[in-house]
Amino acid sequence: MAAEELTRFTIAELAPRLQRREVSPVEVTQAHLERIARENDRLRAYLTVLPERALAAARRAEAEIARGQYRGPLHGIPVAVKDLFAIRGVRMTCGSQILAQHVAQQQATVVQRLEDAGAVLLGTLNLHEFAWGATSINPHYGTPCNPWDPTRLPGGSSGGSAVATRAGLAMATLGTDTGGSVRIPAALCGVVGLKPTYGRVSRHGVFPLCWSLDHPGPLTRSVTDAALVLQAIAGHDPADPTTRRLPVPDYAGALRGEVRGLRLGVPRPFFFEQLDEQVARAVEAALAVLRELGVTCVDLDLPLMRDVPGASLAIMVTEAYAVHEAWLRTRPQDYGADVRLRLALGSTVLGAHYLKAQRFRALLCQEVGEALRRVDALATPTTLLPAPRLDEPVVRLGGSEVVVAANLARFTRPFNLTGLPALSLPCGFSNEGLPIGLQLAGRPFDEATILRLAYAYEQHTSWHRRWPATALGSRGGAA
Amino acid sequence: MAAEELTRFTIAELAPRLQRREVSPVEVTQAHLERIARENDRLRAYLTVLPERALAAARRAEAEIARGQYRGPLHGIPVAVKDLFAIRGVRMTCGSQILAQHVAQQQATVVQRLEDAGAVLLGTLNLHEFAWGATSINPHYGTPCNPWDPTRLPGGSSGGSAVATRAGLAMATLGTDTGGSVRIPAALCGVVGLKPTYGRVSRHGVFPLCWSLDHPGPLTRSVTDAALVLQAIAGHDPADPTTRRLPVPDYAGALRGEVRGLRLGVPRPFFFEQLDEQVARAVEAALAVLRELGVTCVDLDLPLMRDVPGASLAIMVTEAYAVHEAWLRTRPQDYGADVRLRLALGSTVLGAHYLKAQRFRALLCQEVGEALRRVDALATPTTLLPAPRLDEPVVRLGGSEVVVAANLARFTRPFNLTGLPALSLPCGFSNEGLPIGLQLAGRPFDEATILRLAYAYEQHTSWHRRWPATALGSRGGAA
Repeated sequence: MAAEELTRFTIAELAPRLQRREVSPVEVTQAHLERIARENDRLRAYLTVLPERALAAARRAEAEIARGQYRGPLHGIPVAVKDLFAIRGVRMTCGSQILAQHVAQQQATVVQRLEDAGAVLLGTLNLHEFAWGATSINPHYGTPCNPWDPTRLPGGSSGGSAVATRAGLAMATLGTDTGGSVRIPAALCGVVGLKPTYGRVSRHGVFPLCWSLDHPGPLTRSVTDAALVLQAIAGHDPADPTTRRLPVPDYAGALRGEVRGLRLGVPRPFFFEQLDEQVARAVEAALAVLRELGVTCVDLDLPLMRDVPGASLAIMVTEAYAVHEAWLRTRPQDYGADVRLRLALGSTVLGAHYLKAQRFRALLCQEVGEALRRVDALATPTTLLPAPRLDEPVVRLGGSEVVVAANLARFTRPFNLTGLPALSLPCGFSNEGLPIGLQLAGRPFDEATILRLAYAYEQHTSWHRRWPATALGSRGGAA
Repeated sequence: MAAEELTRFTIAELAPRLQRREVSPVEVTQAHLERIARENDRLRAYLTVLPERALAAARRAEAEIARGQYRGPLHGIPVAVKDLFAIRGVRMTCGSQILAQHVAQQQATVVQRLEDAGAVLLGTLNLHEFAWGATSINPHYGTPCNPWDPTRLPGGSSGGSAVATRAGLAMATLGTDTGGSVRIPAALCGVVGLKPTYGRVSRHGVFPLCWSLDHPGPLTRSVTDAALVLQAIAGHDPADPTTRRLPVPDYAGALRGEVRGLRLGVPRPFFFEQLDEQVARAVEAALAVLRELGVTCVDLDLPLMRDVPGASLAIMVTEAYAVHEAWLRTRPQDYGADVRLRLALGSTVLGAHYLKAQRFRALLCQEVGEALRRVDALATPTTLLPAPRLDEPVVRLGGSEVVVAANLARFTRPFNLTGLPALSLPCGFSNEGLPIGLQLAGRPFDEATILRLAYAYEQHTSWHRRWPATALGSRGGAA
């Protein structure tokens, strides 16, 4: 097999070959490291590459598999993490100037769990500064390049994670999602992005943006791969008191369950307004596919969604300011303009108003919870529009002007406020060849149902199999 | 039996006589209503008396008991609640001018539970305005009178509850405790005051001071009575999502358990500093009694306690401001000066700083939780000093000046921040004849152990049997 080819599998495809020793983890890792060496200057997905560490891990995996000590589907699989997951002894910049020289002294629980599952860590991935923005435009490290079109945003904040996953620089990655930071770049780059339920995955060793909204989650090339990575990282962690002591189901097993008879709520007001026409068309077509599979789609209204943007902003700026207050005083010039401005907002929110926003969350949870008694999951577009142009901060949609950076998270934020599991999966392409994301959200701790719906859809479509021309070696795109 | 005598029983003493029909609930209720009519102008314990409602309930109780439908130890017992528990159709002022004409449209869950247990509601009790102060000095309704000495503070904010219980105007009362508002007046008036664990007792229909610190709880004339009232009001309430779905133990049964071998932590730094000498002596004597009963006392240090006052203040002013913001804008002149000032403080606390105070609570819970793995409960004085004079806002203690209103809650607040169960019981009297309180605090949802310790102590002492001269009909005291 050509080395290049080894970077284009899904985990589910490659794992049996690794187990059967048809391919070695060392070959696979080398193929990825070579591709990173060749492409990363252009794609700006990695901030730190760990070739020696990765090859050592790959050799260990090779030896273990050779000895018959196969650990499971992640054994020997090259992965990477957003550069705010601590890897002991490795630089962790959080995409910032302030932490440019910071070396992690601990290991994030989820990093440890990936390594315990046998995964090979290739390095750490570019992101919006301190994970605070939906574009991944980064004044310190450059902006990750959307592999479908270098003139387009990759989405953020886990932009590097989505780019690496889509462009063959890692078979799966971890990101964090505070307002959509896993799902938005997943949608804009055409991969699967999963935000698990709040409390399902440990945040120990993950640099915080907002304690009450942050969720780590995987970005992968298929729904099955998302289930496999979630399986490895999910579950209670004594080091993170916000994780719940709940059993972790067999996610991969759950994929194969029947979807016929499931009820899918379609919240048309708010979530289907002001949409780009091509997004609307792709999402409607996706709903039609699900209906053909026996899923019942039910229109519903969630009136409190209108107040999500305000409440979300109040909570985000307040919690982030609590983290950054000291640096904002001593090193304001080291922040990018957008993050500095949002932090300044945090210095204006009164405690009482922060509390009102938190109280709104309780009402929102109640409203969505009631809807989720009548339906098994919700379906919405992931974003208003496909990847916007880097040079168009404002676009026209539905007859009015929309500030891209402020609106990319419009449909994703509600599931950070409610803590509900939500994933984005590819559901089509625009005429310009840009991927479009379908968002599925489920009941608390019921990642299995949205994975099952997503898997059924994926089995009947082929969007997730499309590779960007740039990732196939040619230098396509408009740049 | 003389009517007056009927106002001087404990519930545990009177209940069997009611059950055996030696006394009628109507007689008991009438005796209390007569005593209220005679004494309330002086004692200012009640804001609203409900003679007709009470007599109707008493007649129902009488008929039920006559039919053999005895409900249990609260059946036919006259009780009263702080004037911030909603009784449907009854005025609820919260001790404020702003709600002077407010009539409750709902029924607090705990009020309903008292009535379901057969208790007879006599009326609603005076308090610090909006429950926000440790003195009960009330510019709108007058200050409840300490039955031991009318020149002394009754303590607050549940001052009317403590006065009514101690002076024979109700056999038991409910108060709320946000920083010590049940335990402080209990200590200063010489009754038992219990703050249950956060989440043990419903707050539905209770006007909030601070959502994350408020606890309803009983004030009674004995530890047994506290157990009986807690039994009636404790347990999950679907209308209050902060209540926990946990079984409620048999509290009265638990009283009789062995205390020999229990370990009692005595946190001498912070909790035993700057004490009034007579308080120190009484508390040491109480610890000696407990040691004689086989309890092991262990000195310990809880260093984070030094930061409790600051964190507590930040949280209280922020949460209270969130409740009062609109009124503070439209009716500032209707607040008393002290409450208005504290509300103004609430308009200065940033969300990020509120969050830091909440994060401090997590550390404090950890520190106290670790101590409570080594000991079964903690013992401290309830207050720095016995009831201070109404006209001495500043006292000298331990060689320095202490602002009374700001320091009465010094030892009680930590157990609001941690949510741990805590009670105050009489443990002696000063040379001036003023009661002194011992505070016992326990593990989460383990009210039973502190009730058991308190009961054992009470069985071997007689402080709780002492009645103020004023309550015995004579007009003692200095007024």
